[in-house]
Amino acid sequence: MASTTAGKIIRCKAAVAWEAGKPLVIEEVEVAPPQANEVRIKILFTSLCHTDVYFWEAKGQTPLFPRIFGHEAGGIVESVGEGVTDLKPGDHVLPVFTGECKECDHCKSEESNMCDLLRINTDRGVMLNDGKSRFSINGQPIYHFVGTSTFSEYTVVHVGCLAKINPTAPLDKVCVLSCGISTGLGATLNVAKPSKGSSVAVFGLGAVGLAAAEGARLAGASRIIGVDLNSKRFPEAKKFGVTEFVNPKDYDMPVQEVIAEMTGGGVDRSVECTGSVSAMISAFECVHDGWGVAVLVGVPNKDDAFKTHPINVLNEKTLKGTFFGNYKPRSDLPSVVEMYMNKELELEKFITHEVPFTEINKAFEYMLKGESLRCIIRMTP
Amino acid sequence: MASTTAGKIIRCKAAVAWEAGKPLVIEEVEVAPPQANEVRIKILFTSLCHTDVYFWEAKGQTPLFPRIFGHEAGGIVESVGEGVTDLKPGDHVLPVFTGECKECDHCKSEESNMCDLLRINTDRGVMLNDGKSRFSINGQPIYHFVGTSTFSEYTVVHVGCLAKINPTAPLDKVCVLSCGISTGLGATLNVAKPSKGSSVAVFGLGAVGLAAAEGARLAGASRIIGVDLNSKRFPEAKKFGVTEFVNPKDYDMPVQEVIAEMTGGGVDRSVECTGSVSAMISAFECVHDGWGVAVLVGVPNKDDAFKTHPINVLNEKTLKGTFFGNYKPRSDLPSVVEMYMNKELELEKFITHEVPFTEINKAFEYMLKGESLRCIIRMTP
Repeated sequence: MASTTAGKIIRCKAAVAWEAGKPLVIEEVEVAPPQANEVRIKILFTSLCHTDVYFWEAKGQTPLFPRIFGHEAGGIVESVGEGVTDLKPGDHVLPVFTGECKECDHCKSEESNMCDLLRINTDRGVMLNDGKSRFSINGQPIYHFVGTSTFSEYTVVHVGCLAKINPTAPLDKVCVLSCGISTGLGATLNVAKPSKGSSVAVFGLGAVGLAAAEGARLAGASRIIGVDLNSKRFPEAKKFGVTEFVNPKDYDMPVQEVIAEMTGGGVDRSVECTGSVSAMISAFECVHDGWGVAVLVGVPNKDDAFKTHPINVLNEKTLKGTFFGNYKPRSDLPSVVEMYMNKELELEKFITHEVPFTEINKAFEYMLKGESLRCIIRMTP
Repeated sequence: MASTTAGKIIRCKAAVAWEAGKPLVIEEVEVAPPQANEVRIKILFTSLCHTDVYFWEAKGQTPLFPRIFGHEAGGIVESVGEGVTDLKPGDHVLPVFTGECKECDHCKSEESNMCDLLRINTDRGVMLNDGKSRFSINGQPIYHFVGTSTFSEYTVVHVGCLAKINPTAPLDKVCVLSCGISTGLGATLNVAKPSKGSSVAVFGLGAVGLAAAEGARLAGASRIIGVDLNSKRFPEAKKFGVTEFVNPKDYDMPVQEVIAEMTGGGVDRSVECTGSVSAMISAFECVHDGWGVAVLVGVPNKDDAFKTHPINVLNEKTLKGTFFGNYKPRSDLPSVVEMYMNKELELEKFITHEVPFTEINKAFEYMLKGESLRCIIRMTP
């Protein structure tokens, strides 16, 4: 498939965040052609994740504006830069906020997916190749976000941050695998690895936690205990395999003790998806001695301290952390798409809303109100 | 082999601790016959471990005296109580401070060795069957210690705390596998599991830490970094495979940063054998992100808090604890004895001293002065 735009600047619509916390503005932007090891893609669908909102609000980190957010998406390759051999125009891809260079120690390790070259960098607003942005409005550069910037009809991404997927997969569904859903799913399937018939506690029943529960369901766990401070989330969670619910507010004792009582000493596995450090500690302390494994997914605040009595560790409990569910974007994500295609993994239940690109700010409202799991943003009218 | 003493009280010598911190006194004690699921054994060799000294000093725990200490030993079965079918008089055994009932969830789990019934209990000074001691002097009961009390020519032990071993194995060597050496060795081989060519940091170069280093050597680690506050331990440690040494006192920065600099980001595995909570934190933080695994072995103080920034966990570092090197005493210890018999594992280098039973207090002196790794106490003149 030949591209008539290859090598040229593309003028298209993008949702620009001019200031922290202010509604995005749909602007006409110029998107420069991809440089070495870069790929320009046409975004068909994108969705909103908490991380976009967190950095848009600019609470606690260095603000970088104007910026184009967005990192969960599905798109089609428009053109490729020098040295790109893995992708060609027309390929269907999922951009990912972290990458896989396939050359560094992490990429070569079977255990890590924390690529040295392309690991998430929320402070960087430019491309690696020349330290500049590919987006501009009348010559003013607009910053990138985590190397993806998918709130744009076209974007430029490092080839190492693109997973080439089955072209028959519906991009309006599998786009949610770009970040949150894969993160929760992988935390359970790749890291916690519950065995059939085991018990799993999931802390936080947002999209990531529900994806962790979905992973536990797929693994055949017989008890999936959902923990959340918002009891309204419980009925919905049943669709994701959650069998029991605990709202820590309903008890006078720590939730780890509640869970230990419910399970005769603790759950076999736990997955923490809130980022609250007290939930992290509870998630660790609620696993069974001898064999329990706690997996931390939620991103903590800068000054948090994880604190526990070391005897909890000595009693043969394991504490693990994961980043993007331990999936290597290029090597592993295509097979997650296949899990959906084979009807093992259900993605539809994560998608609660859909808006056209012109109404992207509604997606922010739904998330801020806690009404949505995932809101799909349709780029093409 | 028929026993002429079976069913009768045996009068023999035992080293009794009458008071905390006071020299042991060799006394004539009466040892009652074994009750249901108990075994009476003749101890041939025993050795002294830090845990004996810790409870003999009675610092920080409920004192229980008079008591017969000792938990690393090799012996021969004299007689068995009702219901004991796994052992018979004449069998060679290693008593172990923790047990394996083979019935509970822990014993049935492939991952745990923390038997519900026979897990270490340092507060209990009596046998499970009737809540009484089998030792007495003129009718006064003398308390047991961790179910083993091997500082006696004869002792009574629950069958679940006895590993039946190869009868050709020299008990004056393999007796050290009862506790400390297996603990360190198993921490590396069963829990840290370093791969060939990997890097391992060992915190604390006492007997347990050196056994952890020996495990790393057996696993084919290419860099074994020993960390200890006492530089005098370094030359000796080379025999156990330690290739590099770090004394945290020699640096202005935290030892985890020193190790990260030495290794380009951190070691692949670490094993903490001191019980100091700051060493535990260093051991965790010094492993490489993406794949590093830290294993805690050392027993902490009651009021310690393990504290780290949760991002260290999120960056795909794993924290594990182990108890007795994750070995199940009855199922796994015989094969560790075979490792020695096959000349893979070298035990001689752990044995620095030997004394006759009458001079048992010398073993305490050697350990308190930090002069010994293991001192073998010969029971028979």
